[in-house]
Amino acid sequence: MRSVSAGALAATGNKKYRSAVGYGLAHVTTLPYDGYLGPSVDTLDYFEKLLNDHSSGFDLPAAVILEAVQGEGGIRPASLRWLQRLRDLTERHEILMILDDIQAGVGRTGKFFSFEAAQIVPDIVTLAKSLSAIGTPMSLVLLRPEVDVWSPGAHSGTFRGNNLAFVAARAALETYWADSKFEDEIARKSGILADELKSIAYDYPNIGFSVRGRGLMYGLVSQEYDSLPIQIQGEALRRGLVIETCGGRNEVLKFLVALTITEADLRRGLSIVRDSIGAVQASMDRSSAESKSATKVSRHTSVSH
Amino acid sequence: MRSVSAGALAATGNKKYRSAVGYGLAHVTTLPYDGYLGPSVDTLDYFEKLLNDHSSGFDLPAAVILEAVQGEGGIRPASLRWLQRLRDLTERHEILMILDDIQAGVGRTGKFFSFEAAQIVPDIVTLAKSLSAIGTPMSLVLLRPEVDVWSPGAHSGTFRGNNLAFVAARAALETYWADSKFEDEIARKSGILADELKSIAYDYPNIGFSVRGRGLMYGLVSQEYDSLPIQIQGEALRRGLVIETCGGRNEVLKFLVALTITEADLRRGLSIVRDSIGAVQASMDRSSAESKSATKVSRHTSVSH
Amino acid sequence: MRSVSAGALAATGNKKYRSAVGYGLAHVTTLPYDGYLGPSVDTLDYFEKLLNDHSSGFDLPAAVILEAVQGEGGIRPASLRWLQRLRDLTERHEILMILDDIQAGVGRTGKFFSFEAAQIVPDIVTLAKSLSAIGTPMSLVLLRPEVDVWSPGAHSGTFRGNNLAFVAARAALETYWADSKFEDEIARKSGILADELKSIAYDYPNIGFSVRGRGLMYGLVSQEYDSLPIQIQGEALRRGLVIETCGGRNEVLKFLVALTITEADLRRGLSIVRDSIGAVQASMDRSSAESKSATKVSRHTSVSH
Amino acid sequence: MRSVSAGALAATGNKKYRSAVGYGLAHVTTLPYDGYLGPSVDTLDYFEKLLNDHSSGFDLPAAVILEAVQGEGGIRPASLRWLQRLRDLTERHEILMILDDIQAGVGRTGKFFSFEAAQIVPDIVTLAKSLSAIGTPMSLVLLRPEVDVWSPGAHSGTFRGNNLAFVAARAALETYWADSKFEDEIARKSGILADELKSIAYDYPNIGFSVRGRGLMYGLVSQEYDSLPIQIQGEALRRGLVIETCGGRNEVLKFLVALTITEADLRRGLSIVRDSIGAVQASMDRSSAESKSATKVSRHTSVSH
Repeated sequence: MRSVSAGALAATGNKKYRSAVGYGLAHVTTLPYDGYLGPSVDTLDYFEKLLNDHSSGFDLPAAVILEAVQGEGGIRPASLRWLQRLRDLTERHEILMILDDIQAGVGRTGKFFSFEAAQIVPDIVTLAKSLSAIGTPMSLVLLRPEVDVWSPGAHSGTFRGNNLAFVAARAALETYWADSKFEDEIARKSGILADELKSIAYDYPNIGFSVRGRGLMYGLVSQEYDSLPIQIQGEALRRGLVIETCGGRNEVLKFLVALTITEADLRRGLSIVRDSIGAVQASMDRSSAESKSATKVSRHTSVSH
Repeated sequence: MRSVSAGALAATGNKKYRSAVGYGLAHVTTLPYDGYLGPSVDTLDYFEKLLNDHSSGFDLPAAVILEAVQGEGGIRPASLRWLQRLRDLTERHEILMILDDIQAGVGRTGKFFSFEAAQIVPDIVTLAKSLSAIGTPMSLVLLRPEVDVWSPGAHSGTFRGNNLAFVAARAALETYWADSKFEDEIARKSGILADELKSIAYDYPNIGFSVRGRGLMYGLVSQEYDSLPIQIQGEALRRGLVIETCGGRNEVLKFLVALTITEADLRRGLSIVRDSIGAVQASMDRSSAESKSATKVSRHTSVSH
Repeated sequence: MRSVSAGALAATGNKKYRSAVGYGLAHVTTLPYDGYLGPSVDTLDYFEKLLNDHSSGFDLPAAVILEAVQGEGGIRPASLRWLQRLRDLTERHEILMILDDIQAGVGRTGKFFSFEAAQIVPDIVTLAKSLSAIGTPMSLVLLRPEVDVWSPGAHSGTFRGNNLAFVAARAALETYWADSKFEDEIARKSGILADELKSIAYDYPNIGFSVRGRGLMYGLVSQEYDSLPIQIQGEALRRGLVIETCGGRNEVLKFLVALTITEADLRRGLSIVRDSIGAVQASMDRSSAESKSATKVSRHTSVSH
Repeated sequence: MRSVSAGALAATGNKKYRSAVGYGLAHVTTLPYDGYLGPSVDTLDYFEKLLNDHSSGFDLPAAVILEAVQGEGGIRPASLRWLQRLRDLTERHEILMILDDIQAGVGRTGKFFSFEAAQIVPDIVTLAKSLSAIGTPMSLVLLRPEVDVWSPGAHSGTFRGNNLAFVAARAALETYWADSKFEDEIARKSGILADELKSIAYDYPNIGFSVRGRGLMYGLVSQEYDSLPIQIQGEALRRGLVIETCGGRNEVLKFLVALTITEADLRRGLSIVRDSIGAVQASMDRSSAESKSATKVSRHTSVSH
């Protein structure tokens, strides 16, 4: 989540953005996402325990906010079962579920909403980014009518309701979401993307890449070598490709290609990434060889004494 | 100020917008603006006293934020002497002065910045609204380099740096601010606007209008009859003119005409306002007459018993 | 007010105590007390304006907390008319009035409650200090039943309900407040105290003392020479008398004698204060004479060159 | 922890006490205590992950506050290994460790400090309750000199430094802690207490009691039948014994006997508890029998139709 308002920054985990506020951010408690405590712990056990424990120091929250697939957090999809249990928990405790679909929504994970696969219905959904289709600023907050407590115009602003963005968004919705063609194309290109990333991971076994994602939202994760994605990003830029990293330590190379990308462009981009990784690997081999020969020389030198 | 972030709303005085947050807004203390305690009190005496009094419960603020001419607050220009004393006070106490020139800046009060007349230099200036010239979203925060503590990209966002807005803003700045012609035109039209508003106030003495403003930012204030501006607004709308109200009780009819307005359009708009006021006055006279005759009938009736 | 909880410190004005918390104190807005903006401004005009102005940025407070005679703030009695108007304002706006009578209550200003003279009834009254009569810790919060929303034991603690304090407080209440004798004695001794302070002020005209207070709660104020009360305090200590100072700059010598003090002890204490002031004055005269002669010598020296 | 200041309540987990404040408590994040996520999860793994993860939304805390044996939380002793790892984690991340030894300190768990067994040295230790030996109010905050940033008198108050409490506390410290006799006696009585509680648990197998604690701080836990400890408390009161419950659902009968209790009194008290449990068990048996016979009658009745 990229955001600059104090209220929204309280809800982001990212230290860099949080510290830009300059004072303590409150009213938000972070809880471990699916998988955060390892594969053997269902983190919702912890949440449920906090909710039922009157000595937990955890006040009943008004709402839970989450992404179904974490974006900046490192392209981490929550399991469908986990999302369903969370929806169930929030319903039983009358906690609103806010699904932040700004990054993962509007087709990004294959369906219009990222949470459709889990067959849940959140109380509030946020949409933005791809929504206006042409990069003009536009965001939406979808509310179940019964939680819409705002008086008309309570949240207004000089630049709200940008005409061009609204017109383009409507055209995009009517064009791309009239039938299943667009979804089918995303699924096909998702297959190409996922296959090539797995192939790259297979071809560079000593880096130990893992692949995570859904639809056209994928991450190539370098858990061991933190600095690798930044180096790959640099090599890619030199080859004419802009690509971002994410995750708390930038350990993830982030693939959020345009949903309308052609197969040719997608393959060309992936080929540049593969070349960039090759270049980084070669540079790693060189410096490793140098350090070994340096050690050899050093030994030799020490022997000569 | 129209704004929707929790940090910014803490700094707005408007109850309607503040309450939309849903929790207490802190970190901001409001102080009386120039004239708030009547003409015989210099409200900066209070501010200075709070700053020097170790028992005031008033912690040294990091910054003071204000408009040189309050917009939503009711078109209230601070006196130049008051602005100068505030600049002096903030300098002596090492408090940053943030001049919110979003509404009053970019030529609105006659000069590019609203505070130029006071010959002060704030530490931080905010600009938006008219800045992009064509309504596309754009805002700037001007900082003295020594207060720029942000790391690059600390405040970023998906929709920042809208290309169209930047290109249009540059063209507007180069076109309108190359010489003094634009300023001269604003001054000429400001004269027409102010004269007509004073003339309206003179022609409707029983309403007791007062006129406040600078440049092309004027308010026709109806202190006694709160509901009048809303009624006038309705009449104007019926006649094809959109006009806003401001002030805590909507007691001000707000004139923020386009800076590029033609004289003909300006006069046509003012003529519609005058007609609308006439219609409201006529309706007031009618209901007053009816209530008198109602009283008469009532008396007669009581006599007949 | 001396207090160490974050909630209570938010309500104190004293910078030294506030800063001991280490983070921003919120939920409390300070407003100018009676007389704070000079004799010609009724500070409740400001409060009333804030309450009625929807653009004031001032949210309707749940409660107003004040002392009828400020203690640490510098022995400042609010006028009875001001207290009455505040009670009226708070009633009309349904704001609770909390009267902090910890320092000024339990007979200190002549009556049991400090606000009796104003014939007002607050919604909540806090009492402590003299209440237990023998220095054992005891405090009370008196509530109108309709504002008591606490569940039983909501505010409990290990050391609440100190038996000795409760027994002593009951005995003191029954002994001293059974008839008007105690009040009469306070009034008589108040006369002695006030007369002697006025006489001291008269006898040291070049210091420009002023005298403020009620009952056995008086301040000898040295507005011009801030450091004087601290010097007098030192001289008094050397003569065996402990006396405190108050006010934002310690500009007030504070007379809060025991309500049960004998006339002889009271006169002896006042005599020590008079002697201490004499000693400070003599020292001021000496250093003034020295600095004059130093100037003379210096001039002479400069001539000799 | 029983406490009534807003700052301290932010650090308590207890919902009842937290809600008494009336506004959101911030600046404190709660983390799972040893054992909170079951025996197979080391909760410090979660803490360490949060500290090292720049996307965790968890800002580096200034301090960690905890009890070595949770009192109100339900008599839960942290394992010594867990305490040692926490001390190590806090040292590495330069986080102050505040050990709240108000309930578990001053001999309660067998040694003077509850954390001695873990051989750790906290940065700050709080002491109160038993400290003054005779119930007069007294508390201490022990600080490593390098963390004492308070200016003298920054935290003062009218009732601080109660003479009687200070004198009694000194005498108690000098009397009871001069040699190991007092500790030996606590150990001996702890054995009696623990043995009898285990024996009670054994004698009422269908209730499923568990026993937790150290020194003279024990809990008899009724995990399945929440309401049981409250019923036992009622029976004990009828038999002349005051005993408290704790835990988020009052599921723990709490044994904090006077450290100076005689063996005879201890045995007498335990015998009353045993009798009370017997009475509750008998009443459970009766109502179970009644509900069975009610079912029988009901069946019979239905047959007779």
